[in-house]
Amino acid sequence: MIHLDLIGIGTGNPDHLTRAAERAMRAADLILLPRKRADAADLLDLRRALCAEVLTDTTRVVVFDLPERAADGPYLGPYLGAVRDWHDAIAAAWAGAIATNLPAGGRVALLVWGDPSLYDSSLRIAARLRRGGMALTVTVVPGITSLQALTAAHAIPLNTLAAPVLVTTGRRLRTAGWPADIDTLAVMLDGDCAFTTLDPAGVTIWWGAYLGMPQQALAAGPLADTGAAIVARRAALRAVHGWIMDTYLLRRTAA
Amino acid sequence: MIHLDLIGIGTGNPDHLTRAAERAMRAADLILLPRKRADAADLLDLRRALCAEVLTDTTRVVVFDLPERAADGPYLGPYLGAVRDWHDAIAAAWAGAIATNLPAGGRVALLVWGDPSLYDSSLRIAARLRRGGMALTVTVVPGITSLQALTAAHAIPLNTLAAPVLVTTGRRLRTAGWPADIDTLAVMLDGDCAFTTLDPAGVTIWWGAYLGMPQQALAAGPLADTGAAIVARRAALRAVHGWIMDTYLLRRTAA
Ligand SMILES: C[S@@+](CC[C@H](N)C(=O)[O-])C[C@H]1O[C@@H](n2cnc3c(N)ncnc32)[C@H](O)[C@@H]1O
Ligand SMILES: C[S@@+](CC[C@H](N)C(=O)[O-])C[C@H]1O[C@@H](n2cnc3c(N)ncnc32)[C@H](O)[C@@H]1O
Repeated sequence: MIHLDLIGIGTGNPDHLTRAAERAMRAADLILLPRKRADAADLLDLRRALCAEVLTDTTRVVVFDLPERAADGPYLGPYLGAVRDWHDAIAAAWAGAIATNLPAGGRVALLVWGDPSLYDSSLRIAARLRRGGMALTVTVVPGITSLQALTAAHAIPLNTLAAPVLVTTGRRLRTAGWPADIDTLAVMLDGDCAFTTLDPAGVTIWWGAYLGMPQQALAAGPLADTGAAIVARRAALRAVHGWIMDTYLLRRTAA
Repeated sequence: MIHLDLIGIGTGNPDHLTRAAERAMRAADLILLPRKRADAADLLDLRRALCAEVLTDTTRVVVFDLPERAADGPYLGPYLGAVRDWHDAIAAAWAGAIATNLPAGGRVALLVWGDPSLYDSSLRIAARLRRGGMALTVTVVPGITSLQALTAAHAIPLNTLAAPVLVTTGRRLRTAGWPADIDTLAVMLDGDCAFTTLDPAGVTIWWGAYLGMPQQALAAGPLADTGAAIVARRAALRAVHGWIMDTYLLRRTAA
């Protein structure tokens, strides 16, 4: 019998940790830390540092190799089939790490970036393990998302008064455009500055990269002026750090 | 000079508190707790209990009366003008409480339910104080939202793979309907079970009330079967507790 805790840890700032997250980390027999491609070593280091800070020595911390996704960059590819194959491979990696390190069962935890509900595959991968026959129970511990880190850093509301917000991806914004009757978009998973495809008239952007982390970068202003500056800054930051994670809010403001 | 911390405290579960929230609470000279209508006394008690647990005795805790909104129930009324008048009255109440309790300036904090960015007026009210001439700086500390408490309690993802999510209100769902090309809706501020106005075919609902609190209630299933059960359960819970806060996710699932 395996119990899996998917623990939202926020976006890299140890101050994002909730009491529930700390408690769940300490209650685990085993914490699995994924090692991805080399350019995200910072993120592994960050999780290691959280473990060192929070854990007492009854919890084992084990690093395992996460399978690479085939082709098409750090963002979700056009072929959901390829993503599904990749998730199968990750499920196999989890199963292997659990079998090796908890042969008699117990509590295993994964430290999920931000919140486990938001553009994260851990729940889908856990479902694969269950379908594959593992006796598995799952608990989710919510964590501060990158969108919350964004709105907090800019001290702005997500929504305008009583109005809706569309949470979407860069790819989707490019292909489906901006719905006419929704004035606020929160855009994630955008490797390619999809905001450059929009008519900037009357639009304000609030952008943030490495939110919650020491290298946090912010920019805000009318999309017409600020968009190009963000494109340039993003490229420069990515060159310096070797990787980037960014997200932004777009709002149509009265002309 | 006044510094205002808007501190997201999650949805009533002390385990939702982040390290940043605890630190900001302790750093405050003054924490203002709003007292609303009698039926929300539970929420005042909850904030008092958090203060008692977290604070050392350098922080003063003061309860102040929050003006009532004119007419139309606990949810956002049809007249945004009335909401704006109400916000003006709240701004005046904040200003009065700050002038009385921090005459020489200092750090004041408000404990904001969930996250201060999500359907919350604190940032708009702070902007009114600034426009009214108060020398005010504002910091936002993110907190776990009711939507995160909902998805965590059900152990479900907010979005399906790479797909968008519309965060909206009950009123808006009633008036604008469900956009054809968005398969997931997260609905808040719904005093009136707006899901009953939808064609339930192929729709799944995940519902939660009092999320994170001892009286937490959950229901999930096909909207066709589950919708009416939620309407009945909601009315019963409201009768027992004297108030209710609930939110839900709707997803079009492949037929
Ligand atoms: C796979 S999703 C995971 C989101 C995460 N579960 C959350 O709650 O924020 C990764 C995307 O989240 C956003 N993101 C995550 N961390 C971020 C950070 N620290 N700063 C800016 N954006 C971030 C970026 O848009 C990135 O493409
Ligand atoms: C004025 S909004 C505030 C939202 C809050 N800032 C947040 O981050 O969740 C109030 C609405 O949030 C939802 N809500 C807040 N707390 C809740 C809880 N504990 N359980 C269920 N829904 C809740 C309900 O939809 C309610 O109508």
